[in-house]
Amino acid sequence: MRERRGLGLVVAAGRLELLDQSRLPHTRQWRAIDTVAAMVEAIRALRVRGAPMIAVAAALLVAVRAEAGDDRDTLIEAIETLRSARPTAVNLSHAMNDLRRAMTGADWRVAVVAAADALADRDAALCEAIGNHGAALIAPGERILTHCNTGALATAGIGTAAGVIRRAHEQGKNVAVWVDETRPLLQGARLTAWEFGMLGVPYTLITDSMAAALMARGQVGRVIVGADRIAANGDVANKIGTYGLAVAAHHHGIPFAVAAPGTTLDPACASGADIEIEQRDAAEVRGVTGAAGDWCWAPADAPAANPAFDVTPAALVTHWILDKGVFDRDAVADGCLVDAVS
Amino acid sequence: MRERRGLGLVVAAGRLELLDQSRLPHTRQWRAIDTVAAMVEAIRALRVRGAPMIAVAAALLVAVRAEAGDDRDTLIEAIETLRSARPTAVNLSHAMNDLRRAMTGADWRVAVVAAADALADRDAALCEAIGNHGAALIAPGERILTHCNTGALATAGIGTAAGVIRRAHEQGKNVAVWVDETRPLLQGARLTAWEFGMLGVPYTLITDSMAAALMARGQVGRVIVGADRIAANGDVANKIGTYGLAVAAHHHGIPFAVAAPGTTLDPACASGADIEIEQRDAAEVRGVTGAAGDWCWAPADAPAANPAFDVTPAALVTHWILDKGVFDRDAVADGCLVDAVS
Repeated sequence: MRERRGLGLVVAAGRLELLDQSRLPHTRQWRAIDTVAAMVEAIRALRVRGAPMIAVAAALLVAVRAEAGDDRDTLIEAIETLRSARPTAVNLSHAMNDLRRAMTGADWRVAVVAAADALADRDAALCEAIGNHGAALIAPGERILTHCNTGALATAGIGTAAGVIRRAHEQGKNVAVWVDETRPLLQGARLTAWEFGMLGVPYTLITDSMAAALMARGQVGRVIVGADRIAANGDVANKIGTYGLAVAAHHHGIPFAVAAPGTTLDPACASGADIEIEQRDAAEVRGVTGAAGDWCWAPADAPAANPAFDVTPAALVTHWILDKGVFDRDAVADGCLVDAVS
Repeated sequence: MRERRGLGLVVAAGRLELLDQSRLPHTRQWRAIDTVAAMVEAIRALRVRGAPMIAVAAALLVAVRAEAGDDRDTLIEAIETLRSARPTAVNLSHAMNDLRRAMTGADWRVAVVAAADALADRDAALCEAIGNHGAALIAPGERILTHCNTGALATAGIGTAAGVIRRAHEQGKNVAVWVDETRPLLQGARLTAWEFGMLGVPYTLITDSMAAALMARGQVGRVIVGADRIAANGDVANKIGTYGLAVAAHHHGIPFAVAAPGTTLDPACASGADIEIEQRDAAEVRGVTGAAGDWCWAPADAPAANPAFDVTPAALVTHWILDKGVFDRDAVADGCLVDAVS
């Protein structure tokens, strides 16, 4: 398998290492991931996160195990165990399907390694295409608001929404970014701020509750977010808080873009109403936990809701920035989204 | 002076004690406040907070010092020092004006104690009136969303927005409350959750970013918030995040109420555009600080914005719940708000 040195994932000499994202930005700890159990733990504990990155990391681990000599049955079991590590991540399931198909021929050991490498290469290429298409939308001097983390830590390439912003920055467009902290797990404050800081992209961190007030004062020119799943009608499931941003952008007439690879589209899902929303542990809302330390500031027994995602209807989205190009609301209403990825 | 035993303030045997709100909910530490310097420190460190509560606590300390025998010049200096402890708090300045007026007669020592007692009594009475007027709006079984802390810790009575909810609960209306955590200082998660828990009001804690998604699913029947300042045209300055809630409520056709005493109205302020927004320390946004511990989860040098308040235009407010009664948008457009408090 190929050597890779990404921001959050390294493959070299048949070994896979992950940068533990749960400890960023203050600690940069690389962890060798040698077993399926270790990868499942890393996914569940958010040491590796971002739907595309999880799929790539899981696939590359299968390749590592194939090269290490695991037999066919063991590898097939590994693929199914990894698939169930995050049931809502459609990319992970698609990636595991690819690997399963590669296991069917006589030359399965070579084929599964090649399939994993191809998945990682393709994800990086999709990010490039998304970044280039999206950057073309952006005017010089724009102030762009983004949510959660959608950069090099979340993908095998430059990212999706953050990749668009990075590419516009590299093109000298003089953009500035409002980074939502993204409660409860603080991916914006911990990861996106860190990435933009390293890239030299000018950014300002805000609490999620400040976005609407900045829009009212004319300080936000565009919102760009990622997507966890896109329904056939263009509805978008993404990190909790995305929908509130879309409502506020709509109220202020600010363009609201979703940037994602075509693989995020789920043609089997007619609309957002079909997307099940994962409820996470109440402890994440009572304070910070896991990702950013462990501190409960609310009453220890406080009842709390913790939906991980919300659904933004297509009517509130201005642009779908996919690897195949940028689609507007009319094109999506005409069914172009499904055509574009099929 | 009269004996008082409030949730966050006790006056007994000539001594004043405050419950240190900066350590709630996990530590209940009462602090004897004997001097002006101690009260100024308590205000600055947010050990006592809430615009009405700060005014009452400062006034009662002046009464304590008057009963302890401080001379007239010392008391006048104390009043001016306390006034400057929080320049943006209009209630504090009004309260200090009352005390200064009481110091003008021959019987100033008795008069200033009576004035402080009257201020505390009046604040409690305003809360009662607001609670009763507001509770009449609420239908049985309503799910109400609120922001920040506006209860017994923030006033000398049952509170404003939280007082309305408490009164509806006491009337057997079977209400349930969504408590916004209220980043960055987490007054919702730390204080409002604690108060509702003690009162037995059913509540569920959420991050600020979850409110819009709950509205989209029909799980919010009404939003009720407090106010730091109300302009003559009905525009409302309140804790950051209030405006985003108002935009989301408007989008979903959900009634949005502001509950506050008439003293919050500033007739000299024509509209929200005249209200200056205090910017607080970036460290509060980079993590938690002061109020809820001390933890930076963002890059230590992350640039951050931290406006303490935002302004909600009158066009997004459905009801102004004041001590004089409930005003709707038509009444406010007709100038009734200013008439009601003059």
